[in-house]
Amino acid sequence: MPVDTIMWEGDINGRIKLIDQTLLPREFKFIYCEDLPTICAAIKELKVRGAPAIGIAAAMAVVIGIRNVNTGVETQDFASLRFFDRLKEVTSYIRTSRPTAVNLFWALERMERVAEENRGKEVSEIKERLLREAIAICEEDKDICRRIGKNGAALLKDDCGVLTHCNAGGLATADYGTALGVIFAAKEQGKKISVYVDETRPLLQGARLTAWELVQAGIETTLICDNMAATVMKEGKVDCVVVGADRIAANGDAANKIGTYGVSILAKEHGIPFYVAAPISTFDLKIPSGSEIPIEQRNAKEVTEPFGCRIAPENGLNVYNPAFDVTPAKYIEAIITEKGVIKRPDKEKICAFFEKR
Amino acid sequence: MPVDTIMWEGDINGRIKLIDQTLLPREFKFIYCEDLPTICAAIKELKVRGAPAIGIAAAMAVVIGIRNVNTGVETQDFASLRFFDRLKEVTSYIRTSRPTAVNLFWALERMERVAEENRGKEVSEIKERLLREAIAICEEDKDICRRIGKNGAALLKDDCGVLTHCNAGGLATADYGTALGVIFAAKEQGKKISVYVDETRPLLQGARLTAWELVQAGIETTLICDNMAATVMKEGKVDCVVVGADRIAANGDAANKIGTYGVSILAKEHGIPFYVAAPISTFDLKIPSGSEIPIEQRNAKEVTEPFGCRIAPENGLNVYNPAFDVTPAKYIEAIITEKGVIKRPDKEKICAFFEKR
Repeated sequence: MPVDTIMWEGDINGRIKLIDQTLLPREFKFIYCEDLPTICAAIKELKVRGAPAIGIAAAMAVVIGIRNVNTGVETQDFASLRFFDRLKEVTSYIRTSRPTAVNLFWALERMERVAEENRGKEVSEIKERLLREAIAICEEDKDICRRIGKNGAALLKDDCGVLTHCNAGGLATADYGTALGVIFAAKEQGKKISVYVDETRPLLQGARLTAWELVQAGIETTLICDNMAATVMKEGKVDCVVVGADRIAANGDAANKIGTYGVSILAKEHGIPFYVAAPISTFDLKIPSGSEIPIEQRNAKEVTEPFGCRIAPENGLNVYNPAFDVTPAKYIEAIITEKGVIKRPDKEKICAFFEKR
Repeated sequence: MPVDTIMWEGDINGRIKLIDQTLLPREFKFIYCEDLPTICAAIKELKVRGAPAIGIAAAMAVVIGIRNVNTGVETQDFASLRFFDRLKEVTSYIRTSRPTAVNLFWALERMERVAEENRGKEVSEIKERLLREAIAICEEDKDICRRIGKNGAALLKDDCGVLTHCNAGGLATADYGTALGVIFAAKEQGKKISVYVDETRPLLQGARLTAWELVQAGIETTLICDNMAATVMKEGKVDCVVVGADRIAANGDAANKIGTYGVSILAKEHGIPFYVAAPISTFDLKIPSGSEIPIEQRNAKEVTEPFGCRIAPENGLNVYNPAFDVTPAKYIEAIITEKGVIKRPDKEKICAFFEKR
C-alpha cells in the first residue's frame, strides 16, 4: 500500500483519517471521523473493514468517544468516575458495530486495560495514554504485517500460483496486509507470484480492493468469479491458497469472509495447501471451537441490489446473507502469525504456541 | 412457466418469438427473430439460453436461414443443389454461435438428416418438412421436460431442501425445465420443497431467472451468492443438489454452467447427493470424457462490468471467464433423463442405458 489505510491525525483533539473503501477502485478518497457515530457508521458500512483495521478503528473510536468528557469544575475523583462511566458507555457502543472480527473486541479490551492501569491519574493524562495506545496499535500492526509476510513468504515457492479470497491486504490492516503481506513479501524476495483473486460477492472486496492493491504492486493478477475457483484449481493454476481471518478459535477453526470455507474444501479436494494469515490478536482462545463464533448477517440488498441495480425478483424471495463462514481447522495447512507458523493447527498446537510466547 | 420460452409463430414465412432473458426479472419482453443474424445474435448474447432452448433456437434458425433460397426459374435439380449448398452454409453459421451445449449441434444434425431424407422432393416441400421438424423439436421438449421432472421427483423426499445452480428451468427449455422440472414435479406431487438458488455469477441466471421462475411457481426460494453454497450445506439446509447440463460425455462427465463443478465437490464433502437432469439429446457419446468438451470463454466485461458498472481496476488486470466447467462423473449420484435415471453414471452404465433404448 502506498498510503496508510487508517491513521490518527493531530493531537487528542484530532481526527481519524481513513480511506473510504466502499468507493474503491473507482474513487480514492479519504474521509475524516471526528465523532463516535461517524466512525462507528464507517465500521458498520465497511468504509473501513478487515479485522486488523477494524481493531485500529475501534481503538481510535475510544479516543474520540472519551475526549470530551467534561472535567471542568469537578473534583478529580468525580471526574474519574464520570470518565470511566463514559468509557464503559463508549466501548459498549463500539462493541455493537460488527460482531465477528475479534480484533475489535481485542482492541477495546486493550484500551480498557490501559485506562484501568492509569485509573489514579488525572483524566487528561488517561486520555493522552489512550491516544498513545490507539496510535501504538496502529503502528504495531504495520510491523506485525511485515512479520506475517516474512513468515508466510517462506511457504511460497518461486513461480507460484496463489488464490486468495476477499481482501486481507493493506486495506484490511494499517498497511501491507496479512494474506497479501505474504504475497508482497514473497515478491520482495524475488519470487514470481501469480495471484487468482476471487471477486468475493456480495460486496466484491476481491474485485474492488485486492485486485486494486495487487495491480498497483505490479503483481500478475487474474480476477475470477467466486464460482471459478474450483476450475482454476483443477487446471493446475493454483499452488496454494492464502486468506486472512476475522476470528480464530482455540482449536484453530477460523472465521473469515463468506466463501472461505468453500474454498478450503476445494483446496483439500485438489491437494492444494490452504493457509490462514492473521495476527495473534485474531485468536480468541476463550472459545473452544468455530461453532461459537458469532456470524454477522447483513442486509439482503447487498445480494439483490449490487450498486443499486436490482438483480432478483422484488417480492416473495428469501435472501440469506451471512458475512462470514467458519473454516474447520482440519482444512487448514498452517496459520501464519507474526510470531511464527502453526502447521496443521489443532487445540494442542495452538495451546503450546501461546504458552511458549 | 406460464408462457413458452421460445416458439415459432406463423407458417414458413413466420418468425421466432422468444423471451429476451437478458432483461429478466426487471422486464418481461418478447423479441421476434426473422433473419439469421438476429437469431444467432440472440443465442450468442444469451437472449435465449439453456442447452435445450438453444437446440430449439438452432432448429428454428435453420428454417429462417433456408426459407428464402431463390427457386424461381430453376430446374428442380439445380434448385435442390442450391438449397443444400445454402443449408450447409446456414448450419455452419449457426454452429459458430456457442460451442459448449451439444443440443445445438444435435438439433442441427437432426435438421440436416430430415433435409437429406427428403432430398428428392421439391425444395418447397423440404422447407415445410424442416419447419415441421423444428416445431416438433420444440413440442417434444415440453414432453421430455415433464418426463425428466417425473423421473427426478421420485428422488426428492418430502420436506426437502434443494440447491440449484444457474437456470435449468422453463427458460432453459421450451417450458417447465430440467432441474427445475424435477422441483416443479415434486411440488405437483404434494411434496414440500425449499430451494436454495446460487445467484450464478457472472450473468446471474440464478438470481435473475431461476429465482423468478420459482417465486412465480409459489415455491419457497432463498437466494444466495455462489460462495454461500458450502455454508447452507454445512448448516443442513440442503438435502440434494439438482442442476442441468450442457453436454454429457460417454463416461458421464457433465459440462454445465461455471461453478457447477465446485458445487459438486461441496456436495460430496457434505454427503449430499448431486443430481444432473438433462434430456438424452445432451449426451455426446462421441467423446469419451469431459476433458474433450469445448469450454466457451466469454468477454471479461461480464465479470468486471456487471450492468455497466465497473467493479475492478481498469488496467493491468487479467480476467478469466470460462462460461462452463466439467463435473466428473464420480461426483454425480445420478443423471435424470426422460428415459430413466442412470445412477452413479460411468461408461458402462451409460453404454448399457443407450443400448437398451
